[in-house]
Amino acid sequence: MAGRLSRIDTAQPDLIARATLRIDTPGPALIEITHDAAQFLNQSGAGDGALTAFVRHTSASLTIQENADPDVRRDLLTALQRLAPENAGWVHDVEGPDDMPAHVKSMLNGVSLQIPVNEGDLALGAWQGIYVAEHRTSPHRREVVLQFCGSCANSDKATD
Amino acid sequence: MAGRLSRIDTAQPDLIARATLRIDTPGPALIEITHDAAQFLNQSGAGDGALTAFVRHTSASLTIQENADPDVRRDLLTALQRLAPENAGWVHDVEGPDDMPAHVKSMLNGVSLQIPVNEGDLALGAWQGIYVAEHRTSPHRREVVLQFCGSCANSDKATD
Amino acid sequence: MAGRLSRIDTAQPDLIARATLRIDTPGPALIEITHDAAQFLNQSGAGDGALTAFVRHTSASLTIQENADPDVRRDLLTALQRLAPENAGWVHDVEGPDDMPAHVKSMLNGVSLQIPVNEGDLALGAWQGIYVAEHRTSPHRREVVLQFCGSCANSDKATD
Repeated sequence: MAGRLSRIDTAQPDLIARATLRIDTPGPALIEITHDAAQFLNQSGAGDGALTAFVRHTSASLTIQENADPDVRRDLLTALQRLAPENAGWVHDVEGPDDMPAHVKSMLNGVSLQIPVNEGDLALGAWQGIYVAEHRTSPHRREVVLQFCGSCANSDKATD
Repeated sequence: MAGRLSRIDTAQPDLIARATLRIDTPGPALIEITHDAAQFLNQSGAGDGALTAFVRHTSASLTIQENADPDVRRDLLTALQRLAPENAGWVHDVEGPDDMPAHVKSMLNGVSLQIPVNEGDLALGAWQGIYVAEHRTSPHRREVVLQFCGSCANSDKATD
Repeated sequence: MAGRLSRIDTAQPDLIARATLRIDTPGPALIEITHDAAQFLNQSGAGDGALTAFVRHTSASLTIQENADPDVRRDLLTALQRLAPENAGWVHDVEGPDDMPAHVKSMLNGVSLQIPVNEGDLALGAWQGIYVAEHRTSPHRREVVLQFCGSCANSDKATD
């Protein structure tokens, strides 16, 4: 074994909850949605389980990254810019020079995330935040599907 | 809050369904499996929940990308080629010059995806398709595990 | 359809189990946790469902990669090093020259994985292993949340 396993906690799955989060982006940015996700879990009455976040676009993406120094977010966008530059001989350019790089960035980052939920709380580390990454130059309206699968907060507490 | 949250829909989890999808790839390509995934959900009697797709290989991957202009797919393969070129001094070369780049591309793309399912339908955006990415030069047979966890279509409608 | 779909197996979701795996890393490395994940599933009494793995850090990540030739792992770290080099003009450098590259590598790899589970066994391919990727130069203690959602091993067998 590579590590030490903690005590195992169990619960009974009896809730699926889903909502759509709509976000207006300002152009290239990492926009934190951790609090929106926490609000969704709270309003859903979520207990133990997992949150799925899914962005319904191919030129935006989702990432979990440092929520402290804003310079980290700036550098992450720079890194993606370097990995998928404009004017790099892309065949697909009918939607503008920023579109194909946006698709590449979306592919590298991914559009789905899965985060464990512990008694209604996201099991994020201290420095982790959930971010929607906008990769297009102009502002866009983006949709993120949030879904919880797990136990109800009440039924969960009842079995403690 | 960064966005506006819609109404929350809920359901009761009472179905796990799993099947394996076998695909013959022609060499480097993005092969759409959206319709196969929809067929799986339909045959499973899926209601509300999430689909997990998982490719059981280390030189292929899964990605969700634009399903309209085929040039986008061509450029995505070009982008991966640039990020993981052949003849770049890789130590691992016993399986041919295309093998190690294929592992790197698989790592960057990832092998698992999670997509919310809404009354039996994938909650994909209008321009999103699910693709198996083949990264080896020669044709390969690939396996994708499809799994639904959520409510049954019937029990779901019963609670509407 | 792009492929051939196998028979569909179904089960009843009645178990959520969660534990935390603590790992001491030696600095940059891919550390296999496949056996730890299998142990967790076994101790949880897992049947059919899916395992979520989630690393609670922004300078480490998770990846599924080849478990045979160790040279592959060496080359994967080299590939990440090339995609996110040190001394590349990063703004964020207060935590050392290896910190910002570690965030970029973590973003590219991702921090969450989802793996189908079949009668208590991970549905990994023959050459797939689950790895925690350490991206910082110095040794770190890392936490990975493991979560199973699906059927109990017993209830599952009872319905066979």
